[in-house]
Amino acid sequence: MTTTITSFLEGYHELNAAVIDELSEQPSPLEFMRYVARNRPFVVRRVATDWQAYRRWDAAYLRQMMADEQVKVAVTPLGNADAVVEQSDGHLLFVEPYETYHLFNNFLNEIQRPIASREPLPVKYAQTQNDNLREEYARLLPDVPSDIPFARIALDQSADAVNLWLGDNRSVTSLHKDNYENIYVQIRGQKHFVLLAPADMPCVNEQMLRQGRYVPATSANGLEDVTNAFAIEISDSDERIPVATWDPDLPDERTTAYTHLAKPLRVTLNEGDMLYLPAMWYHKVSQTVGAEGFACAVNYWYDMDFSGYFWSSNALVRDMVEAERLTPKYPKLEMQIEQ
Amino acid sequence: MTTTITSFLEGYHELNAAVIDELSEQPSPLEFMRYVARNRPFVVRRVATDWQAYRRWDAAYLRQMMADEQVKVAVTPLGNADAVVEQSDGHLLFVEPYETYHLFNNFLNEIQRPIASREPLPVKYAQTQNDNLREEYARLLPDVPSDIPFARIALDQSADAVNLWLGDNRSVTSLHKDNYENIYVQIRGQKHFVLLAPADMPCVNEQMLRQGRYVPATSANGLEDVTNAFAIEISDSDERIPVATWDPDLPDERTTAYTHLAKPLRVTLNEGDMLYLPAMWYHKVSQTVGAEGFACAVNYWYDMDFSGYFWSSNALVRDMVEAERLTPKYPKLEMQIEQ
Repeated sequence: MTTTITSFLEGYHELNAAVIDELSEQPSPLEFMRYVARNRPFVVRRVATDWQAYRRWDAAYLRQMMADEQVKVAVTPLGNADAVVEQSDGHLLFVEPYETYHLFNNFLNEIQRPIASREPLPVKYAQTQNDNLREEYARLLPDVPSDIPFARIALDQSADAVNLWLGDNRSVTSLHKDNYENIYVQIRGQKHFVLLAPADMPCVNEQMLRQGRYVPATSANGLEDVTNAFAIEISDSDERIPVATWDPDLPDERTTAYTHLAKPLRVTLNEGDMLYLPAMWYHKVSQTVGAEGFACAVNYWYDMDFSGYFWSSNALVRDMVEAERLTPKYPKLEMQIEQ
Repeated sequence: MTTTITSFLEGYHELNAAVIDELSEQPSPLEFMRYVARNRPFVVRRVATDWQAYRRWDAAYLRQMMADEQVKVAVTPLGNADAVVEQSDGHLLFVEPYETYHLFNNFLNEIQRPIASREPLPVKYAQTQNDNLREEYARLLPDVPSDIPFARIALDQSADAVNLWLGDNRSVTSLHKDNYENIYVQIRGQKHFVLLAPADMPCVNEQMLRQGRYVPATSANGLEDVTNAFAIEISDSDERIPVATWDPDLPDERTTAYTHLAKPLRVTLNEGDMLYLPAMWYHKVSQTVGAEGFACAVNYWYDMDFSGYFWSSNALVRDMVEAERLTPKYPKLEMQIEQ
């Protein structure tokens, strides 16, 4: 089976360039559909420079619009929301952030405060991914298109979710995949993507992990926010979820027999740039704040198509990798030749 | 591995209907591209009724246009061009037809002659599949669109080949696949398709077969056409090619461990109907002659896209099936319990 998976990985990368297409303008619905059909990403530079969000979203405007709204904030010790955390006994856990509510003004103050002055305060990130731009941040919604026309027409559906992401340099989204077609637009600051095609699944060392959640160690005192001491509360449930444990930025750790065959693509979005991130692509995302000390992006999720060949064959690769992982490895027998 | 392949087949068929979509009119390029992306077929009924070919191609017109042109004709004892033939020792061969040239008039005469009066004469079929409508049959080319607009625009390319198919009830194209996107249009008579999705590859018992070619047994006498006695000339080359050996019309023969999971789709094209046959779909094709005793169709082949996930994962399934075929099967050990 090893040979089969190796041939698949090599074949995929022989037929697909290890660079991301850069389009000079937004694609037509048909051009977009060709990318969807091939499940390949592209970038369009400065396409959102005519969005109200691009022109308006400075700190003063955001404060004015969001004023004293309560917003949900993910809090972590190291910026590692939804991340793999190795416990002292070597076991891996999938740890979700502590979630709390802040007044938007206070949250933005914390984000903008120079990092040096904040250590060792925890890292905060507005990243609820639950269609928050049409809910919590609804006052900002008129500043972005309600949909991405080429995607809406091509996929014959409206966006399932529109999300706002707001944070500082320390937040990193660890390598994962979503079963959505994703249009990602940077408004302020930069986003640094490391992308891996779904074919690279055998390389990312997906493991079934128990889940946990960060909790402030001092929450009993009601002083949860003033310290960076966190405990991890392990879920009572025995349920485990599949998590990519390989980190393309630590390429020699937590590898599989196939990791060396992965072809990570790297791309940075600047203000106004758009990325089409196809369904099931692994992505690790970090960011650099803009002139005012925060990074802000918007993304549109569209339901992926589970019919056709893609989803089923993707599941096949997962099952193959899993079956191989469960096959005991016997030591090689060697003939001892007597001299 | 058996379980993995079974899950793949079951998963694919759960997510994909076992019927062919029927569109009420030709799709737009975008609508077509959605079908290409999903690698799923569709039929459009009576879409070619405004083609000159549909209105003009009766026997008299074809004779008048093609007059004394020489056309290449495939000749077989049973109508089985490009077919699996079992030899007396049980070995399978992939046998190509004997090919010869006829004056078009003579060829059409033979096709139109009532079958009863012809037996046991060999079966003839104009099916060269080498862009013949732009070559041998160029005089008929103005009667069909030079391209299928929705496909040309969607795929951003012109047809790689346009083929004419002309034969009688006895010709059957055995189960095979092509690495082309295929638009198939029936002009006269009917075409009966049995279709299998590429996912059904584990079901069709692909084997690496040596090649042969029918040769008239009496060709030494120059009387090759008057008898139905054929010999098979086996290729000198040791080269073997992969051939689907399962026949969906003989479902219990030459099966694999997966054949029972296949979901053959059946569709008949009537005069003026169009089928989109996506790349790598297996198809077995038989036909029924029209009012004038011949069946005639036209098809357009467009290059498929080898990038993206589809081609690579299709090759993976092939490699898995092949690896499993080469794995020796040990008899199950059973514990004998002494009474």
